[in-house]
Amino acid sequence: MTPPTQPAHDPVPLPPGFRAHAGSAGLRERGDDVFVVVNDGPSPASSAVFTRSLFAGPSVVLSRENAAGGTARGVVVVAKNANVATGEQGMADAREVLERAAGAVDVAPGELLIASTGVIGRRYPMDKLRAHLDGLAGATFDADAVALATAMMTTDTHPKTARVEVTTTTGGAAQVVGIAKGVGMIEPDMATMIAVLFTDAAVEPGVLDSAFRAAVDETFNCLSVDTDTSTSDTAIALASGAGDPVGEVELREAFEAVCLDLTRQLARDGEGATKLLTVEVTGARDRAQAKRVAKAILNSPLVKTAVHGADPNWGRVAMAIGKCHDDTDINPERVRIVFGDLETYPAFPGEAELERLTEIMRAEEVTISVDLGVEGGSGVEGGAADGSCTVYGCDLTREYISINADYTT
Amino acid sequence: MTPPTQPAHDPVPLPPGFRAHAGSAGLRERGDDVFVVVNDGPSPASSAVFTRSLFAGPSVVLSRENAAGGTARGVVVVAKNANVATGEQGMADAREVLERAAGAVDVAPGELLIASTGVIGRRYPMDKLRAHLDGLAGATFDADAVALATAMMTTDTHPKTARVEVTTTTGGAAQVVGIAKGVGMIEPDMATMIAVLFTDAAVEPGVLDSAFRAAVDETFNCLSVDTDTSTSDTAIALASGAGDPVGEVELREAFEAVCLDLTRQLARDGEGATKLLTVEVTGARDRAQAKRVAKAILNSPLVKTAVHGADPNWGRVAMAIGKCHDDTDINPERVRIVFGDLETYPAFPGEAELERLTEIMRAEEVTISVDLGVEGGSGVEGGAADGSCTVYGCDLTREYISINADYTT
Repeated sequence: MTPPTQPAHDPVPLPPGFRAHAGSAGLRERGDDVFVVVNDGPSPASSAVFTRSLFAGPSVVLSRENAAGGTARGVVVVAKNANVATGEQGMADAREVLERAAGAVDVAPGELLIASTGVIGRRYPMDKLRAHLDGLAGATFDADAVALATAMMTTDTHPKTARVEVTTTTGGAAQVVGIAKGVGMIEPDMATMIAVLFTDAAVEPGVLDSAFRAAVDETFNCLSVDTDTSTSDTAIALASGAGDPVGEVELREAFEAVCLDLTRQLARDGEGATKLLTVEVTGARDRAQAKRVAKAILNSPLVKTAVHGADPNWGRVAMAIGKCHDDTDINPERVRIVFGDLETYPAFPGEAELERLTEIMRAEEVTISVDLGVEGGSGVEGGAADGSCTVYGCDLTREYISINADYTT
Repeated sequence: MTPPTQPAHDPVPLPPGFRAHAGSAGLRERGDDVFVVVNDGPSPASSAVFTRSLFAGPSVVLSRENAAGGTARGVVVVAKNANVATGEQGMADAREVLERAAGAVDVAPGELLIASTGVIGRRYPMDKLRAHLDGLAGATFDADAVALATAMMTTDTHPKTARVEVTTTTGGAAQVVGIAKGVGMIEPDMATMIAVLFTDAAVEPGVLDSAFRAAVDETFNCLSVDTDTSTSDTAIALASGAGDPVGEVELREAFEAVCLDLTRQLARDGEGATKLLTVEVTGARDRAQAKRVAKAILNSPLVKTAVHGADPNWGRVAMAIGKCHDDTDINPERVRIVFGDLETYPAFPGEAELERLTEIMRAEEVTISVDLGVEGGSGVEGGAADGSCTVYGCDLTREYISINADYTT
């Protein structure tokens, strides 16, 4: 597997077996706002994970149904309107979009997935969508990944793509290409707002599914911009089989590399963000505890604003750990807090160290490492536990307020 | 009971039986930063509730011990430094402060409570505190509640006091006077950062305790400025018995009125806040579910920024309810969302209603009411459940970021 590349805005072709069209239905003032991807490969396989929101919209409800078999043939994505909290009419609208898109690209409506992103509580402008989708039949399907990632942006400042090559069982190379969007209302619970991975690898649906879910769990599910979980979170992996088979371990590693790259891009482009904030927790009872503590730190507005202002107020990390008061096996006397390579607790930094801490916090990437030192590890007698988790977020800025105090109007 | 009054900054005398001194130990640039209150009443009773933070500081640890008997005789409060995450030395410092203060006012150290608020992870400036406390013995103890509330402010913009009169069992009147501080790192779990209630009512410690805990649960524990729980939360009630006895119900109602008044003052003065945001949830399975949903709405940065910008983006309330995905008995089709008196879901407002919604959201107080319509109420066959909870917070503004990106430096 090659390391992921982020080719700025150079074209990123989809892997063999896929064709795509991105176009404008007039949902936003300028630029594309709808795309359709079709998997024409010899052995199509799919996997999809969705938001756990109680207010999941019709797009999520329909895609859940159509993804169940693991052989979805494509996806249609609509930007600028999430079609959520729109009642029975919203469900009818979503079905109609799916049917018209499927008809235009000659697959069954039950083989197509749908994802939608944008304002909640407003109906789709159906006249515009009908006109656009009916015109698709005669359109050219040659869009690349950057065009797709661009068409689904909302407050994203740039399209997000990632690509790796992975060795096949025959010694050749298959590709994994991913796209993602979402910079606000981001604390995915099963997936980020919208992400789609494409591979030409030949892979059974069950293998694709387990590799993809494992990758999502370590990456998108460890991302939080603002603690708000979208009603529309959707992550999809599509394999065409136009290439050779890939082993499960190799596939999972490739998916994880692409998803991690996209996760870091989403965090760094969080609404108003100026910095990538990474929190690593080790020495926890288990991974769930490590993630709970890491998220408490990552999501604390006081930690996020301190990171923004490069304010060496490391005590706020202690405060955030303290919030996990049901984790009674965490003993403050065994906790260690480190910014970059500088220990702040229990080292009790003096003035010189606080100045160095300010320098560390001025960087574009700030990493906070916490070892909980929970006792009773399974490995060594009297040893420490080894649960760990790394999570990704960003600072909290005035710009986040500006963006979100005036979004629909 | 009279309704609570907020006499701006006119003096608010403490009830009979209390004497107090507020002074400057030089912990802040100007103004008082330490106060001591002594309960000289004939039948002193006390109740206290504290943060559940794992990183609770020495002040909380010592006060928990001294509050256990229900007969504490006073409290010393230190502002500008929380003395948290300061190790063994921090505990020794707290003991010394308690001993010197107790010695100066002639009570036993085990009869005095201590609360502290300010930066985390820095030692008390003990030289300054020693000099100040040793001088207390000759000082005049005539401070009123406004002077005390002022001495403990950090980023508060004004001192917070409230006062009611309550009828005694003999037909006379007793007083309840309360003070509070805390406008950031505020999502109390057992209490707000620091609040102290004083009453001259004669009351048994057990009755005082149950009345106070009931009041705190409905008020301070329903407050959230920024989801961050302080390491120092402390709420104390002191009764002197200098007045006549008060019935338990009357006492609870008086405590609740004073605590609610202080809670609303704290919410409205939340760091950077321009508005008071109240969220009422009804029709829940039980109070716990109502509170969980209400807090999800109150704490959503996207709801808070929409309220700040008077953006009629009501769909964000649906999103926030949707985050409570473990509450599988909440059916979106039975949910009702109301801003002020305007239903937005499932009414699906048109342009005229959205304009009216903007007007409603421009007010200094915004109330969001949600009825969950959970089925299976215990009252009527097929009826709705009746769990409810009201919570208090504020909008999220650029000023919150400015205050917190640059606090210690």
